[in-house]
Amino acid sequence: VVIIDIFRASTAICAALHNGVEKIIPVTTIEEALAFKGKGFILASERQGMVIDGFDMGNSPQAFLNPDLIGKTIVFTTTNGTDAISAAREAKKIWIGSFINLSAIAEALIELNEETILLCAGWNNKFNLEDTVFAGALVSRVSSYLDCKSCDAAMTAEILYHSAEKDLLGFLYQSCHYNRLKHLHLEEDMEFSTHIDLAKVIPVFENGIIRAYQNS
Amino acid sequence: VVIIDIFRASTAICAALHNGVEKIIPVTTIEEALAFKGKGFILASERQGMVIDGFDMGNSPQAFLNPDLIGKTIVFTTTNGTDAISAAREAKKIWIGSFINLSAIAEALIELNEETILLCAGWNNKFNLEDTVFAGALVSRVSSYLDCKSCDAAMTAEILYHSAEKDLLGFLYQSCHYNRLKHLHLEEDMEFSTHIDLAKVIPVFENGIIRAYQNS
Repeated sequence: VVIIDIFRASTAICAALHNGVEKIIPVTTIEEALAFKGKGFILASERQGMVIDGFDMGNSPQAFLNPDLIGKTIVFTTTNGTDAISAAREAKKIWIGSFINLSAIAEALIELNEETILLCAGWNNKFNLEDTVFAGALVSRVSSYLDCKSCDAAMTAEILYHSAEKDLLGFLYQSCHYNRLKHLHLEEDMEFSTHIDLAKVIPVFENGIIRAYQNS
Repeated sequence: VVIIDIFRASTAICAALHNGVEKIIPVTTIEEALAFKGKGFILASERQGMVIDGFDMGNSPQAFLNPDLIGKTIVFTTTNGTDAISAAREAKKIWIGSFINLSAIAEALIELNEETILLCAGWNNKFNLEDTVFAGALVSRVSSYLDCKSCDAAMTAEILYHSAEKDLLGFLYQSCHYNRLKHLHLEEDMEFSTHIDLAKVIPVFENGIIRAYQNS
């Protein structure tokens, strides 16, 4: 399963591990996260697009590039992203995908050559544009190598991506979540989230922890 | 709620009422349908694309244009379509949409001017291409009059429709369900199902029965 929450959890996780964060502990509730407070962890959270009181940071992806975070462990809870990870917990492998590690994920999927679900986190259990456009980008990178034709959702996501690719950020201006975050003045986060291939890292979730995947 | 099951239940229902069928009783299971046998009803069914033994007809939309059916009552069970009707049963109004009554539905929605869900039946609880393309066609007809911008799914369906509209049938050749039905030699059904505006009727589901909607 590839977990996709472009604005902004999956982009933030990729940025963090790219920066050299040692590991990320995703938790579902704010209470679970706060239980880690004062024990040497960095606490990151987001609810309805905003940072929660008592946390060290929100989920602006650029903030995870801070050199102070190198080697640290981050406890992370977001509205949709950590729920998606939780939903996928029975999967054999759980990776985190974003535009910033698009090629790395695509190449690893081709090499792995196994049945894969692209799990779009969406927003409050609804379909959203940006996660599906990313899923389409991933399909477009792997469809010459893997069978994507037996799934209408994958084909449709790819068609959507081809409508978007010439001006990805401009295309995503239409998205409801873009507009929701724009009202919170988070345009920079969204611009960052549409940069392709800034990172080579693949975050993998295993035994409750997200780390950089060690490709054998 | 507009119920959408393009290949083929919603197209068949529109064709039937357009032809002059008096009413349609949708039922979920084959057993429920067979309980009506020998009581003056026409029994229509489909499972995995095929007619069931003991039924009078399947769900090829063209078959519902047979003049022998005028004034009759049809008991109808299909794989996905009747399940969708059942899922929507709490809605204030339940209409059935297809390409063959696209403009009629669009105009009625604009006149009604209420919050509407376009319920794509899909296939075995999965997303499918043809139902979403139709939803997009409907959005494209109503989006100048009704707010569709606050829903990424509606916007995405419209974008998809604009990719498809120049050659609707050709576009749908990609769809998994098209290929499934093609193996059953049902290409004519699918061609029929993509003809726009053959009918002006709006099927409405009320008190367990589908009839032509009487627009006041």
